[in-house]
Amino acid sequence: MASGAVPVKSPLRASIAGQINKTLPAAHWISTYERQYLTGDITAGVITAIMLAPQAMAYAMLAGLPPQTGLYASIVPLILYAGFGSSRTLAVGPVALVSLITADALGSIAGQGTEAYINAALALAIMVGLMNLALGFLRAGFLVNFMSHPVISGFTSAAAIVIGFSQLKHVLGVDLPRSHNIIEIVGNAAGMFSEFKWMTIGIAAAGVVFLVVSNGWLNGYLKSRGLSEERAIQISRTGPLFLVLASTIAVWALALAATHGVAIVGDIPSGLPPISVPPFEPGLWRALAPTAALITLIGFLESVSVAKALAAKRRQKIDPNREFVGLGFANIGAAFTGGYPVTGGFSRSSVNFQAGAATPLASIITAGLIALTVLFLTPIFYFLPKAVLAAIIITAVAGLVDWRMPKRLWRYDRAEAMSVIVTFLAVLTFGVEIGIVAGVVFSILVFLGKTAKPHIAIIGRVGTSEHFRNILRHEVHTDPKILMMRIDENLYFANSNYFEEQILHAMANHQSAENVVINCNAINMIDGSAMEALEALVENLREGGVTLHLAEVKGPVMDRLLKTDFLDRLKPGKVFLSAYDAMIELESQLNANSDAVK
Amino acid sequence: MASGAVPVKSPLRASIAGQINKTLPAAHWISTYERQYLTGDITAGVITAIMLAPQAMAYAMLAGLPPQTGLYASIVPLILYAGFGSSRTLAVGPVALVSLITADALGSIAGQGTEAYINAALALAIMVGLMNLALGFLRAGFLVNFMSHPVISGFTSAAAIVIGFSQLKHVLGVDLPRSHNIIEIVGNAAGMFSEFKWMTIGIAAAGVVFLVVSNGWLNGYLKSRGLSEERAIQISRTGPLFLVLASTIAVWALALAATHGVAIVGDIPSGLPPISVPPFEPGLWRALAPTAALITLIGFLESVSVAKALAAKRRQKIDPNREFVGLGFANIGAAFTGGYPVTGGFSRSSVNFQAGAATPLASIITAGLIALTVLFLTPIFYFLPKAVLAAIIITAVAGLVDWRMPKRLWRYDRAEAMSVIVTFLAVLTFGVEIGIVAGVVFSILVFLGKTAKPHIAIIGRVGTSEHFRNILRHEVHTDPKILMMRIDENLYFANSNYFEEQILHAMANHQSAENVVINCNAINMIDGSAMEALEALVENLREGGVTLHLAEVKGPVMDRLLKTDFLDRLKPGKVFLSAYDAMIELESQLNANSDAVK
Repeated sequence: MASGAVPVKSPLRASIAGQINKTLPAAHWISTYERQYLTGDITAGVITAIMLAPQAMAYAMLAGLPPQTGLYASIVPLILYAGFGSSRTLAVGPVALVSLITADALGSIAGQGTEAYINAALALAIMVGLMNLALGFLRAGFLVNFMSHPVISGFTSAAAIVIGFSQLKHVLGVDLPRSHNIIEIVGNAAGMFSEFKWMTIGIAAAGVVFLVVSNGWLNGYLKSRGLSEERAIQISRTGPLFLVLASTIAVWALALAATHGVAIVGDIPSGLPPISVPPFEPGLWRALAPTAALITLIGFLESVSVAKALAAKRRQKIDPNREFVGLGFANIGAAFTGGYPVTGGFSRSSVNFQAGAATPLASIITAGLIALTVLFLTPIFYFLPKAVLAAIIITAVAGLVDWRMPKRLWRYDRAEAMSVIVTFLAVLTFGVEIGIVAGVVFSILVFLGKTAKPHIAIIGRVGTSEHFRNILRHEVHTDPKILMMRIDENLYFANSNYFEEQILHAMANHQSAENVVINCNAINMIDGSAMEALEALVENLREGGVTLHLAEVKGPVMDRLLKTDFLDRLKPGKVFLSAYDAMIELESQLNANSDAVK
Repeated sequence: MASGAVPVKSPLRASIAGQINKTLPAAHWISTYERQYLTGDITAGVITAIMLAPQAMAYAMLAGLPPQTGLYASIVPLILYAGFGSSRTLAVGPVALVSLITADALGSIAGQGTEAYINAALALAIMVGLMNLALGFLRAGFLVNFMSHPVISGFTSAAAIVIGFSQLKHVLGVDLPRSHNIIEIVGNAAGMFSEFKWMTIGIAAAGVVFLVVSNGWLNGYLKSRGLSEERAIQISRTGPLFLVLASTIAVWALALAATHGVAIVGDIPSGLPPISVPPFEPGLWRALAPTAALITLIGFLESVSVAKALAAKRRQKIDPNREFVGLGFANIGAAFTGGYPVTGGFSRSSVNFQAGAATPLASIITAGLIALTVLFLTPIFYFLPKAVLAAIIITAVAGLVDWRMPKRLWRYDRAEAMSVIVTFLAVLTFGVEIGIVAGVVFSILVFLGKTAKPHIAIIGRVGTSEHFRNILRHEVHTDPKILMMRIDENLYFANSNYFEEQILHAMANHQSAENVVINCNAINMIDGSAMEALEALVENLREGGVTLHLAEVKGPVMDRLLKTDFLDRLKPGKVFLSAYDAMIELESQLNANSDAVK
């Protein structure tokens, strides 16, 4: 890395520089900034701003907030993330999933459009910010690991469907009652058929078609015409902005709002984001706490997965605990500048990266352009039809529905495919919060279930070699007085009864055996329950005249066993270096004994 | 085994005999009964009955039920278990833990001493019976594995303390208000100091001292005087019966009930158990369902662990699913004969075994003796002081408080020791049901936490051998262009981010590496999340110009990978048979490439 850019002269100075870099990552990228980065950063900053402006308004609408809230959430948070985050190319701002969760939680606290609703969004943002900081301080990034990929896939797919259907009212132009049950939404919509605004439906449909074409087909076409990847992206990603401008002009010119009842965005106050103070009401905070926790984890997950993927492409590092800090300050920034919870967006960050962003300067440029937009350009959004924002949301989330994961998993492991399905159905049926908890619990049970009945083989010696293999799969030599077994799993509470039973069963079927050797080469851990089960096994076998031995115990496992009196209890059983050593020594012992008897 | 006792002549007949044995295990032990078993069975049956009679009344009192309920629960259930259970020596009947859980649940449904309370106990028994049958039918014995030993230890210790303090009112002879909070109980008791019945306290104290001496000291003394283990047990286990008779005579002769207010058992109706019909009220069943589930699991756990330990001493087998059937019928029997939930008792079964029980005939003899007791002997219990029953309960549960487990675990693994403490405190604070759920959840998180950050080593070749070891622990040879790593854990969702990050970190620190080889010899499982993480890793490393390879992939893991397109995605990465093969082939490839460049 270009550490030469910071002239380090003394250890003290180096340590101070290190401390600053650690506290404020921006110090690092600013002090090592190179001129060659500038073109990429400017291009990426502009492209991302063009993509972000309409998205920000659309996602704010999804969250039940006025459009300017989305824009406000796209200024200060971006600058703070640039200062504190560890990713060089992550594009922070409003995203669909977090907006849905926000709408879900705020809907049960206040009515949309009320002051209380907007204040609750600020409270949610500061809570998310503080939770991020707390998790970063506690280095608790591992928490997100409990959400398995199947659970995330099922959750995201179901959430995308819920988000899509939530836009139905904007597409149809009717005032549907609030509901999260898809069947209910469709039923309500069907009942209001006579009130459908056909012009609105037409605008939404045209918008979706246009966005699908510009995002997908246009990009491919431009590349086929010989444009570079970067250039193709730069052009195709202006699609949403073009759609916004074209539809606004059409609605204004044809007076569609007045003549055809097309719902429009209307007045957006212009001027920089207001300084807002999130309400500190204990009751409100308690009510929002589970939602804030969910947004924190989901937001962190989305950010880190994209940041990691992008960083790896340039062999850079992401510090997950540093990400908490970056996202924490970004959300606190949102709370004090009239925004709502933000996180790193997947597609937006990819665009930022592909458009050439080299440093967080790109995000600062994006933030500057969004600031200019709210300062000067809000009047042009007056006639922007809400149906177009709905089209932007629908095309954005359509790609989130993931059929591939459950299909692949069905072949790989049906229990895991069930995790996707359980999470998916639970989110659709019970909502996002209960849904994801159900999914997490189910996936943990699936994992425990898999390790609960480990593969246990009776092994024997292959020819005259030192290798011991499964007697069912290989031609091996065994000694009727020595039963050798291998357990292919960590030993812990969920399988401690199982392995004990299996070994006792095997003993009952090998009445002549006087020694049992357990080969532990596949055991990375023995927990307290399993150790007790082993002790009981030693005792039970001893009562039946059989001695238990272990072989090939791994270093870390042995270290733990040495802290207990297990090895004393095992006596006269031993721990052998290998299955081969065990067989040689036990056979010679048995021979000596039988000689003595003779 | 003595299968010769059933003359098998044709395969058909053998199959019918097998079917009968399977459906009714009793057919097996009856048809293979040998005369030599008889003495042991009779002795054990008598000793167990002598031990059981006072315990049954005491535990019924603990459950808040009249004393005869305990006796009723010790007749038909024992006979049914003898017919359907798989253990030859398990002694079924009322036990302390189940009695506590029963009192806990029924206390919130009806007042003690009411008809409704007794009926609820019958409903609980039939529900426990049906749940046992259902779990046996579903072969769901594995469910108990989710209760780890630390959780059971913490649960049992806390429950024993709760049980002990629940007897305080009988010891002090005062009418304490119902409470499960120990501090509250002690506070209430202190406030009633002036009402303490000192004679009652004296009887309880004498009872405890006598039982401690007869159970422990007497047993040792008799053996030291040359008596056999069996004989010593036969004598020392008559202690409770002797205490019951002596205290009853004393209370009667000295008229302590009238003069010193010593609470006595009073009228126990004589005659065989009544035919009772448990109430089938949906509301009641719903309210009791969680308790029934807990009793089913705890009862099964207690039964199976003792049955397994005893069976192993004689190299017999226990079929856990058959145990569900045996306990199921036993509890249904209790429900229809005026009893309450039963299970296999730990100390009682040990006594039965040590006193010489060879077959379930011993239990049938015990049941017969208890039946004779309720027919003819209940009048002699009229003057039995409740303080003596309390002394029997207290000495029985005192041994259940387990300080050894948390102490040992503290040395072995602090996180697991925390499982004991969390469960213990949760049971004391929130009661048995919430307490055990909290413990189970905590212990699962501890396990997941342990596997979430597996040991990952960078490995190198030891000298010129084929062995590869940790570079930090051994003097090894490495190639700057080939980074070799070993992950010592199953790869699954909780560690999929971790191992991906660790490998990317290692890559960032080894900028010259062009190949990464992951040695998979300690990996017994790769779940869907980990497979996705591996795919992302392949892709991310490829973008950075690095190829990922695997080595020593185990058979079952490989079988699964072959069901997916992972190996195609890995290309040009390969799966090598061993780390050694990987190094040889990759080095020759790198040499060939560099030769080509020259």
